[in-house]
Amino acid sequence: MTIRPLALSAGDPAGVGGEIIAKAWRTLREAGPPFVVIGDAQLLASAGAGVKVQAVTRPREALDVFADALPVIDIPLLSPVVAGQPSPAYAPQVIRWIETGVGLALSGEVSGLVTAPIAKAPLYDAGFKFPGHTEFLAELTAAERFEGPRGPVMMLTAGDLRTTLATIHTPIAKVPGALTIEGIVNTALVTADALRRDFGVAAPRLAVAGLNPHAGEGGAIGREEIEIIGPAVQALRDRGVDAIGPSPADTLFHAEARARYDGVLCMYHDQALIPVKMLDFWGGVNVTLGLPIVRTSPDHGTGFDIAGRGLARPDSLIAAIQLAAQIAARRGG
Amino acid sequence: MTIRPLALSAGDPAGVGGEIIAKAWRTLREAGPPFVVIGDAQLLASAGAGVKVQAVTRPREALDVFADALPVIDIPLLSPVVAGQPSPAYAPQVIRWIETGVGLALSGEVSGLVTAPIAKAPLYDAGFKFPGHTEFLAELTAAERFEGPRGPVMMLTAGDLRTTLATIHTPIAKVPGALTIEGIVNTALVTADALRRDFGVAAPRLAVAGLNPHAGEGGAIGREEIEIIGPAVQALRDRGVDAIGPSPADTLFHAEARARYDGVLCMYHDQALIPVKMLDFWGGVNVTLGLPIVRTSPDHGTGFDIAGRGLARPDSLIAAIQLAAQIAARRGG
Repeated sequence: MTIRPLALSAGDPAGVGGEIIAKAWRTLREAGPPFVVIGDAQLLASAGAGVKVQAVTRPREALDVFADALPVIDIPLLSPVVAGQPSPAYAPQVIRWIETGVGLALSGEVSGLVTAPIAKAPLYDAGFKFPGHTEFLAELTAAERFEGPRGPVMMLTAGDLRTTLATIHTPIAKVPGALTIEGIVNTALVTADALRRDFGVAAPRLAVAGLNPHAGEGGAIGREEIEIIGPAVQALRDRGVDAIGPSPADTLFHAEARARYDGVLCMYHDQALIPVKMLDFWGGVNVTLGLPIVRTSPDHGTGFDIAGRGLARPDSLIAAIQLAAQIAARRGG
Repeated sequence: MTIRPLALSAGDPAGVGGEIIAKAWRTLREAGPPFVVIGDAQLLASAGAGVKVQAVTRPREALDVFADALPVIDIPLLSPVVAGQPSPAYAPQVIRWIETGVGLALSGEVSGLVTAPIAKAPLYDAGFKFPGHTEFLAELTAAERFEGPRGPVMMLTAGDLRTTLATIHTPIAKVPGALTIEGIVNTALVTADALRRDFGVAAPRLAVAGLNPHAGEGGAIGREEIEIIGPAVQALRDRGVDAIGPSPADTLFHAEARARYDGVLCMYHDQALIPVKMLDFWGGVNVTLGLPIVRTSPDHGTGFDIAGRGLARPDSLIAAIQLAAQIAARRGG
């Protein structure tokens, strides 16, 4: 199999994307994994504090270039950028960078897609209709065949911890009503399949967190464990998934507990993100499971408040690139 | 000032209380802090796997005894105990052990009270009317004068992390409705006062967690931060409390974030307990703030499933004893 680069969509031009991409390239240029950026070459040169940028036409050219220059498929912006000042004017290019990356991943010219952070508000102002990257990527890849339970499912991972989410950007008041047996079962099936396919775990053990304090304490502190999460775990076990739970969330995340499972399905955002960011505040990675393409991203946002100041840390982007390359290799290069 | 022992109420007789008390005594008998158990002397000798138990009449006698034997104010049970099998038959003694400990703390014969775990169900079956230890202790000490904002407020602490809770054993579905500006302000005032009085922090910095993902992201993911938590933080600042927030909970608990505050007010149980138990799964301590007496307890339950098998770890009880002694010393011995 020919070695292929990853594609890296450049994200919001007013954010820290260009800076962390240049920093990640400096770290990875010698040992790889190689990647090709899809973005504005001039902006990258400037945001990257003088990093050498080289425009390429096809991803495979990036392999020869990568040790010496940051390879870019150049799709230029039409208006100047001020760091830290997002604008809907950039939205058509930001979207096209993502679409191009998906196209290259679907055609097999790149082995996967890493997406730098986007901001939702300026995209919405420009008419973007998806809640975020994840749903947009699901739409762009919907027509492609995929062997296995279909996502998208969001995984956040740091260190030895891999979490997936039954609800994501849902207000706490709406979380209980958003939980369904079917939703939990499907998310768990995608998780278990991805642990096998993408993470090389032959017989995945899945933990399922409860929602309430003490996982409801037998119904005394909430009934979602009895009525929804428990039956979902049972349905998973009936389908042969090695699932345990619902388990009290506070006893699920210390090292001894983490050793008992390969992935944990969480009921809401902070139940997963508090542990992930405690284990590795700077290096967490967001992985989209159950798509026909490999896709990872940093677990942080656009960083408008520090954009253009040289302060942004590339740890999470570097980890995202490395994980995308590992998953791509497991999917067959 | 005369040195005084702590009182230690023995907790549920069918749980791990006797075992961890004996183990804690073995660890602390030489260097202290000294304590006197209030419980059933015979049960302690048996649960403690042959530890030497000595009945005393007054707490001060425990000081001479402590290095050689586990001192007990003996209030015997009236029926035999089977480890792991709770019963409402024990409830009158369990309650009396606690009441006796509170009485000794109020009279000044002991410097504070450490409570071994109780189970709620058998106490309820016997007519006990309080949600738990904390509320019962508040009632027993209600007539006593206390300089400062009055609790009870539950603090969970491990390592450098001190968390207090705006809601405790509340189902997630009911947490948003249980949050009020007044409740958060009062909990924060008790927390700040206790950080000064009990933890020796001259100018406490208080962080206040948000409820929703990304602390609501400006109202896009829930409005409790705008309508309740934010105004509460402002009210605290208006009263001179060094409070910040509402802060996204996932970015509040890594070491760098923890260095920015002395205590953090959490909105719900697992938001506090996930970090506490990740930092120290075995050694977390529960402290009741804003009471006229010093009171701590282990942060675990009765352990009926492992009672009588010698497996229970005393880490949390030992930490609770040590912290009670430190707080008592700060309150003046």
